[in-house]
Amino acid sequence: MGKITCQVLKGTRDFLPSQFIVRRKVIETIEQTFEEFGFEPMETPALEYAETLEEKYGEEGARLIYKFTDRGGRSIALRYDLTVPLARNMAMYQIDKPFRRYQISPVWRADKPQKGRFREFWQCDADIVGSREIWADAEMIGLTYFILKKLGFEDFTIRINNRKLLNGMALYGGIKEKQMGVFFRIIDKSEKIGWEGVRSELESKKFSRDAIAKTIGMIVQEGQGSDLLNRMKDTLKEIPAAREGISELEEIERCLGNMGVTTNISFDVSLARGLDYYTGPIFETVIEKPRIGSISGGGRYDGLIGMFSGKDIPATGTSLGLERIITIMEELKMLPVTSTLSEVLVAVFDRSLVGVSFQVAAKLRSAGINTEMYLKDDKLKKQFSYANNKGIPLVIIVGPDEQEQGIVGLKDMRKGAQLTVSLDDMTQKVKEMLRKGE
Amino acid sequence: MGKITCQVLKGTRDFLPSQFIVRRKVIETIEQTFEEFGFEPMETPALEYAETLEEKYGEEGARLIYKFTDRGGRSIALRYDLTVPLARNMAMYQIDKPFRRYQISPVWRADKPQKGRFREFWQCDADIVGSREIWADAEMIGLTYFILKKLGFEDFTIRINNRKLLNGMALYGGIKEKQMGVFFRIIDKSEKIGWEGVRSELESKKFSRDAIAKTIGMIVQEGQGSDLLNRMKDTLKEIPAAREGISELEEIERCLGNMGVTTNISFDVSLARGLDYYTGPIFETVIEKPRIGSISGGGRYDGLIGMFSGKDIPATGTSLGLERIITIMEELKMLPVTSTLSEVLVAVFDRSLVGVSFQVAAKLRSAGINTEMYLKDDKLKKQFSYANNKGIPLVIIVGPDEQEQGIVGLKDMRKGAQLTVSLDDMTQKVKEMLRKGE
Repeated sequence: MGKITCQVLKGTRDFLPSQFIVRRKVIETIEQTFEEFGFEPMETPALEYAETLEEKYGEEGARLIYKFTDRGGRSIALRYDLTVPLARNMAMYQIDKPFRRYQISPVWRADKPQKGRFREFWQCDADIVGSREIWADAEMIGLTYFILKKLGFEDFTIRINNRKLLNGMALYGGIKEKQMGVFFRIIDKSEKIGWEGVRSELESKKFSRDAIAKTIGMIVQEGQGSDLLNRMKDTLKEIPAAREGISELEEIERCLGNMGVTTNISFDVSLARGLDYYTGPIFETVIEKPRIGSISGGGRYDGLIGMFSGKDIPATGTSLGLERIITIMEELKMLPVTSTLSEVLVAVFDRSLVGVSFQVAAKLRSAGINTEMYLKDDKLKKQFSYANNKGIPLVIIVGPDEQEQGIVGLKDMRKGAQLTVSLDDMTQKVKEMLRKGE
Repeated sequence: MGKITCQVLKGTRDFLPSQFIVRRKVIETIEQTFEEFGFEPMETPALEYAETLEEKYGEEGARLIYKFTDRGGRSIALRYDLTVPLARNMAMYQIDKPFRRYQISPVWRADKPQKGRFREFWQCDADIVGSREIWADAEMIGLTYFILKKLGFEDFTIRINNRKLLNGMALYGGIKEKQMGVFFRIIDKSEKIGWEGVRSELESKKFSRDAIAKTIGMIVQEGQGSDLLNRMKDTLKEIPAAREGISELEEIERCLGNMGVTTNISFDVSLARGLDYYTGPIFETVIEKPRIGSISGGGRYDGLIGMFSGKDIPATGTSLGLERIITIMEELKMLPVTSTLSEVLVAVFDRSLVGVSFQVAAKLRSAGINTEMYLKDDKLKKQFSYANNKGIPLVIIVGPDEQEQGIVGLKDMRKGAQLTVSLDDMTQKVKEMLRKGE
């Protein structure tokens, strides 16, 4: 028999059941919290007209979008994130607002694969469209907080800033409006290249020494800490954009307090976020240990939907990076240990008795019990060892004696104990044992 | 503000929450039944090396695979179905067998979009790998039966045949082994082009008149009906392949009987299934009303995994077409009417009271109640009408009086009734009202 090459594309992954089941548990927790916050699931297609995605993600994005021409000559792209398709969608349909949706889906980037960086990976996005109120931004931050708590995280920090405040700081330092985009993108690199790196990159882009000293000085010296907003309010009192940004951050703090979120948040004027389209509050979550970059990021983007609709529709949202979250949970041993969803294996005593095994399996399944039937005429020992390896807690065996007496043998693989029970009582007994074993 | 073109790619779809929630309910029912049968979820990537998919789907497939060359010069393809990626996967990993997995994922085909035919659509596949026993095929058919019953279908027929029997019939008619593939592909068109069409296409492919008369005559005259297998056994008693095929179908009938599946199945020797890779039992489900083609199809493919691994690994599986199933359920008004997952809308009385609304929402959410907070300073009337349009059953309002007294107003949108309840009793009361309203 011929053999052909057989591998997954680099940067993409197979998830075998034992891996996928754990992954899905994490996804379900995120979904549940999204829904508790009134977000509802929505889906956009993986394929979009390339034009829809082009010029939305800056230079890096342009390079990383998977694009191709189909047989009809159409220029097509694979979804690069979940935000731009949402914006396209929101411009197309008339929907009651404020509108909340979440989407948990794969996105594709033609990136160089490396540890923790994939070409196909999942994002978990929640967005509120149609509310200008800063309350909506507070909801996004509260949502992030409760998801991470529910997943079991303790040592995380949600960093919060405001593009308006950053604008004000830049204006205060003498940076011109039209240089803002470049300025923020360089600031955003401080974690990677350090503040000295930021300073020299700003210099190379012809920002004046004075402006650099004034702005970066302020960010580095006054960047964080408990009294940040008050100090900033004082320093920047002459700059309207800054005053507005600070007052929005104060409102966020109050809303979070009312939600019971008083820890794990930090106002931090060094946070810039790379994307061009943010217009107000921005936020991201970092984990101190292990240090792995941000695990969520988001902010207000009041202009993006307007690029599609021609109408100004405000929006704010957050995106959780599923891959990083799972990587960290793995490292910190926070993941559940489930390896199978099957609860009972119905063994096949021998070929002549396969019929009664089918009957037993049908009975358990009709009661909603996840039941695998062993589908080979193997020795019982091999069947037990199969159940054991897979982590299936119970095995049912019907031999000729059991069949004659209308009973089944029931083995608890967790304890090695075996008992018999009548066919009539079997379902009840199995349910009890599954509960007890938990 | 500039406006750019804004549309979904033809043949792909957005699913807004009201659509997606219903879709997900159908998916959940399918998932649940898969799991009751011991199948576990698995995922393969959307992107594969083109080589993995090429030459697996016959001529039509070759034309419809989305292929492109990435920046690194690699030839890449989008998943065309879920079976070939599974085969690739099974050849790569050492996993205990018999192995059961299911996958519910989108696949892509560069087809001409038309009513009910999409470029991006979802398949629901379950497969058993590593069992040669015909029991496994019976499981696949039983699984299909119970899924359709659980979804609420009554008038469906699972047609069952066996490639071995078809082979035997063709040999009996004088058709040569190497012509089998072409023969089956033409037979498979009988629903589309009629038996006369099949006859003339076979003639055009140089099959002898005698062979055509003998085989098609047998299929048309003896094709279905209760005593089919016995009649066939008699006619084809000299052909070993046919005898083996018939005995496998008898075994399937016995297994199904033991599962309690005695209706909605039909042995039918006119069923051929188009794909080359089937080697044993084949099956598909048709709905009589509305007539829309098959809604599931599958069979045994003992050679496919071997194309990747070089080792012979038997397998059987079934694939449910989610789009057709949903289309039919829509037409027959079988879909659930859920339009929202949100259970409570917390209104905002006015800007000064937004804090207490956040407190109330936080309280309900922490009790696991899906709670949307209204995020605009609109008139209460508008907020009620928002809840009403969306189908949210309960609205909570806290005005200044309520706040002072530590109570909340609670409006049941289903009845229009309004009452007040203390903050302490709120969660309990809401839970009761949600239960009662069901």
